[in-house]
Amino acid sequence: MIHKTVKIGENSRIGQLVVIEKDVVIGENVEIGHHVVIKRGTIIGDNTVVKEFTLLGQSPSTNRSIASKPTSKLSNLIINENVMIGSHAIIYHGTKIGDGVLIGDAAHVRENVHVGKDSIIGRNVFVENNTTIGKRVTVQTNSYVTANMIVENDVFIGPCFSSSNDKYMGKGNVALQGPILKYGAKVGNNASLLPGVNIGENAIIGAGAVVTKDVSENTIVVGNPAKPIK
Amino acid sequence: MIHKTVKIGENSRIGQLVVIEKDVVIGENVEIGHHVVIKRGTIIGDNTVVKEFTLLGQSPSTNRSIASKPTSKLSNLIINENVMIGSHAIIYHGTKIGDGVLIGDAAHVRENVHVGKDSIIGRNVFVENNTTIGKRVTVQTNSYVTANMIVENDVFIGPCFSSSNDKYMGKGNVALQGPILKYGAKVGNNASLLPGVNIGENAIIGAGAVVTKDVSENTIVVGNPAKPIK
Amino acid sequence: MIHKTVKIGENSRIGQLVVIEKDVVIGENVEIGHHVVIKRGTIIGDNTVVKEFTLLGQSPSTNRSIASKPTSKLSNLIINENVMIGSHAIIYHGTKIGDGVLIGDAAHVRENVHVGKDSIIGRNVFVENNTTIGKRVTVQTNSYVTANMIVENDVFIGPCFSSSNDKYMGKGNVALQGPILKYGAKVGNNASLLPGVNIGENAIIGAGAVVTKDVSENTIVVGNPAKPIK
Repeated sequence: MIHKTVKIGENSRIGQLVVIEKDVVIGENVEIGHHVVIKRGTIIGDNTVVKEFTLLGQSPSTNRSIASKPTSKLSNLIINENVMIGSHAIIYHGTKIGDGVLIGDAAHVRENVHVGKDSIIGRNVFVENNTTIGKRVTVQTNSYVTANMIVENDVFIGPCFSSSNDKYMGKGNVALQGPILKYGAKVGNNASLLPGVNIGENAIIGAGAVVTKDVSENTIVVGNPAKPIK
Repeated sequence: MIHKTVKIGENSRIGQLVVIEKDVVIGENVEIGHHVVIKRGTIIGDNTVVKEFTLLGQSPSTNRSIASKPTSKLSNLIINENVMIGSHAIIYHGTKIGDGVLIGDAAHVRENVHVGKDSIIGRNVFVENNTTIGKRVTVQTNSYVTANMIVENDVFIGPCFSSSNDKYMGKGNVALQGPILKYGAKVGNNASLLPGVNIGENAIIGAGAVVTKDVSENTIVVGNPAKPIK
Repeated sequence: MIHKTVKIGENSRIGQLVVIEKDVVIGENVEIGHHVVIKRGTIIGDNTVVKEFTLLGQSPSTNRSIASKPTSKLSNLIINENVMIGSHAIIYHGTKIGDGVLIGDAAHVRENVHVGKDSIIGRNVFVENNTTIGKRVTVQTNSYVTANMIVENDVFIGPCFSSSNDKYMGKGNVALQGPILKYGAKVGNNASLLPGVNIGENAIIGAGAVVTKDVSENTIVVGNPAKPIK
């Protein structure tokens, strides 16, 4: 079930019942768990670990009612060195995962995403397409990072965070814009960010806050709707 | 690993390490990914795609402390034509998926559910048992659609939506009733709907709203608890 | 794909494409679905059911930026008798699952957790490490039970519950402490509990409530921030 064109580096170990498609390149000292599927053209760096039931190199799905069809061919998925990927995860083509990143069990990272060095994408976190995540970012379990969002370096996002990018909920004819989280911002558990809000450097969003407006740097907001605390 | 009684239509392609049980019927031009499991009796229409690690025809699980045991035999899972099903999804027996529906990666649809034509059940969305979803409905990523809920045509539900159906949280002796979302209603991200609330036609529920009472048609509500805005 | 040292009791049935590693012990009348992976040393009691694509005996993942490395070897995963485990679930080593427990599809239970007799861990529920869950507890779909949390007997947690344990969001040098839910407490859907809050016996947390302070026994709180109702 490993295609004859696949290249596997020295000291790499492949589990049982693994499917590896054409033109995949795997570095040295890589560990691939049982039942992993790696789709055509995926590139995996040295010392990376991929656990059971994970799917690398997925392609986007659409049905006939989705307006935004993918227009161009995606580049191959590139996973750098020293990356740790849990089980039951899904990572799409067109995406790049930086050195030393941790992707938790059942996390999904979609197409045209870049995850910077040493960041943590927690268990069951979903990162939608066209989103950029900086270095040393933590996104904790169950959080939802919408499409067209920017997360700068050293941001911390607690568990069960929610974001959105469509002000008109399916009915407008406008560009989708996710929130922007500036350097060092922190977000508490189960907070909600509305489309396009800008969260300033080192701002803090309280747990359960519903953020409907921009938040200035170094400011703490809480409540529904979120307001600064004195 | 494909049972000898399975019928597969012309031009259909089956991936590697797939398990297809007894009496499954697969239409023409269907694509089944690697490591898919299709349980006994499932029926799949023409031009449908099923991606890796998906399980079709699951049966309900109970333990000895669950009062509501399934009483009657479920009908077989029926998936219509032109359906797109992502990877790591789970769809139960007793359910019917309409033409052109999109079921995202890791979405679950339980028993005795009907999903209408051209609807989108997003990634990691859970639709519980005995719920009806209309046509052209969108349910975005991570949303939770409880049991005994009614979602009418053209409803839009943003990401991380939450609903419930048990007013007495496990202690009452009453029928469970999920919310009702009427035609064209829209729900923002991370909103919560309490058991049995009725959301009128074209009403809008703001992001993060906690809806404890019925909402009239064409009304916008926000906050916790949710109140109409002027 | 079943290691020669594996012991399997009478009347147990093993599905197709299953991987069972060294020194696993499986009781009598156990049912293992297709594509299940059971890692080294896992112990499974009589009459237990494990559905498709489930991974038992997972090991923790870390990257170089996580401070709290596991310090000692985990004990083997022990699953007692009459346990029902759904599909696509993940249970770690170092954990013990009591008699008659139900673990839903796609639920994750991490290392050093104890789940008491007859409890229900719903579909897509995540229970983090070092957490203790009592007997007859219900945790409904999509809920997030953080690390170092205590859930006493007969607690009921609705769907999409969120909890956290890190007051300083990654920047403090203090012990992590999750919430404590005392005997019989009930939590509504999509409620958020902040680090270390203490919820008294038979207290009720309303749907969507954001709980920032301790709640006394037999008290009902709602809102953001949560306050007692009269």
